Amino acid sequence: MTRFASFADLHAACLDLPRGHVGAAASVARREATLTKPPRSLGRLEQAVAWLGLWQGKNPPRLANVEILVFAGNHGVTAQGVSAYPAEVTAQMVANFATGGAAINQLAQIANAELRVISLDLDHPTADFTVRPAMTEPEFLDAVSSGYEALSPEADLVVLGEMGIGNTTAASAVSAALFGGGGGRFAGYGTGLDDAGLKRKRQAIDRALARHAAILGDPLRVAAALGGRELAAILGACLAARHLRIPVLLDGFVCTAAVAPLAKLRADALDHTLAGHVSAESGHRFLLEELHLNPLLDLGMRLGEGSGAAVAVLVLRAALACHTGMATFAEAHVSDKDA
Amino acid sequence: MTRFASFADLHAACLDLPRGHVGAAASVARREATLTKPPRSLGRLEQAVAWLGLWQGKNPPRLANVEILVFAGNHGVTAQGVSAYPAEVTAQMVANFATGGAAINQLAQIANAELRVISLDLDHPTADFTVRPAMTEPEFLDAVSSGYEALSPEADLVVLGEMGIGNTTAASAVSAALFGGGGGRFAGYGTGLDDAGLKRKRQAIDRALARHAAILGDPLRVAAALGGRELAAILGACLAARHLRIPVLLDGFVCTAAVAPLAKLRADALDHTLAGHVSAESGHRFLLEELHLNPLLDLGMRLGEGSGAAVAVLVLRAALACHTGMATFAEAHVSDKDA
Repeated sequence: MTRFASFADLHAACLDLPRGHVGAAASVARREATLTKPPRSLGRLEQAVAWLGLWQGKNPPRLANVEILVFAGNHGVTAQGVSAYPAEVTAQMVANFATGGAAINQLAQIANAELRVISLDLDHPTADFTVRPAMTEPEFLDAVSSGYEALSPEADLVVLGEMGIGNTTAASAVSAALFGGGGGRFAGYGTGLDDAGLKRKRQAIDRALARHAAILGDPLRVAAALGGRELAAILGACLAARHLRIPVLLDGFVCTAAVAPLAKLRADALDHTLAGHVSAESGHRFLLEELHLNPLLDLGMRLGEGSGAAVAVLVLRAALACHTGMATFAEAHVSDKDA
Repeated sequence: MTRFASFADLHAACLDLPRGHVGAAASVARREATLTKPPRSLGRLEQAVAWLGLWQGKNPPRLANVEILVFAGNHGVTAQGVSAYPAEVTAQMVANFATGGAAINQLAQIANAELRVISLDLDHPTADFTVRPAMTEPEFLDAVSSGYEALSPEADLVVLGEMGIGNTTAASAVSAALFGGGGGRFAGYGTGLDDAGLKRKRQAIDRALARHAAILGDPLRVAAALGGRELAAILGACLAARHLRIPVLLDGFVCTAAVAPLAKLRADALDHTLAGHVSAESGHRFLLEELHLNPLLDLGMRLGEGSGAAVAVLVLRAALACHTGMATFAEAHVSDKDA
């Protein structure tokens, strides 16, 4: 069991990160160059296989055990009228996950991935962060630890996702705290706000940034004060994956905002992650640019639940199938370039 | 058997096109609105399902029979030194398709699609179009008819792809003939030309455009004079799919250039197609813009063989799985927006 005892304890863990297996990545690249196609003609598919090899330390990489972890939390900031849906939808959607009716259930099945949903104290929303920090230090560390412990060491790839009515407001506040620009830069329509709702959301974020001005230079305190339990758990799961050198597919805006504090603490902290997609939620594109993450897909999705990243799993499976199944020039008696 | 007897006969068939099944598309949209997600939050996945329904006339649409048709041809213009690989690679790659060693074999398998490869007179390359028309009228119509007849009426979705050393030169020439800009606009590095090779390729295209200036206003004669047999067959298969109202996924630059003459003849001729991806081959993006086609994927691929479109099949399967498998708000007892 890994339980973080303090901000300082977690901070130290966030700085102590292993690098990838460079030898395995080189081995992947050597095989790739022998396959019956022009060099680099599979583009990001080739890069994705090299990335899987780098972090798994295997050539060929494996996608036998793909885990989708969806964390759910509730948010006191919904009191500010920042969401198009009532807060009880979080628990209703968790029930929908359990009975297999949500988008992520269908996508997990088609991606041949195991879906696990972890609810974080849904009956006790975080505090309204326009008034006080969303979480106390122990509450935040509990949520981070829950995420850290949720990760299976046997996973070949982990997809991180979330559910939480109000959490694009938290993600916008965290993003603005870390990268500047205020509510106007990162807040979007979420699940379907009208213009008046968007205005309320932006104002709530700006009030929160003013209230918590003293801690905006400390990424972990930002995550505690302006985030939410499911965001904290995603941060913990992403950190655990790095410590175990398991590659991670990030989902949309909320998921990316959840791990952004890690990148603020150490510039290479997200090297084991790949952005599965860019969401239609407007802040996501800005945030990905700040983090120098290049999303694999751009399908206008904005559902959360890990849904965009789950579609990206299919692309990784296609990439790996090419890498492992294709014939070499020699095997197929195909003339190589300049041969 | 449909054999086109003349340019005029084919021209008439290109103008006589059915529309989609509007009722089925509306039925798809009505179900979509009841599913447990914010409206339109699955973005292009929802649009793709509506498009499948529109052309199949079914709700839910089906993806039981997905066919990948790869047409192969050889090109006399390779005499101008426009490719990084020797012309015999076309036949070698067709053999590689037959033994299952190419990228498209792996992608067809993972997409659960049937792969059929149709070689078009590989021992007789088209004429060098810098000197004379690539094909005579009967040669062109034979190739178009081969493609038209290759389509299975039972297919739920058809993926069109190609193999042909030198065919990005043909695709660039056709694109420039139809949309202007010369070799400089559409020609790219293909399978891996060096800068001197790219210069030769551009000059060859510009010489061909000058030589065939008299027919550049006639899209079908452009396809015959500057295209290739596999491009002509793709045009025929795309036309057959439209007559049968079967949706089509287009692959990369060559595939898109092959069907571009249809859009010049009738503006809505490609409404039953979806661009599976945008290739890293530079001309493809310009061509898609000219055709108002919005690609589903942008993965830096530039292999041909139908490979990019085959990856897009996975996205369509994900989309359909959500549409058919998700619970409605009522079934899952989830509060709808504003409820």
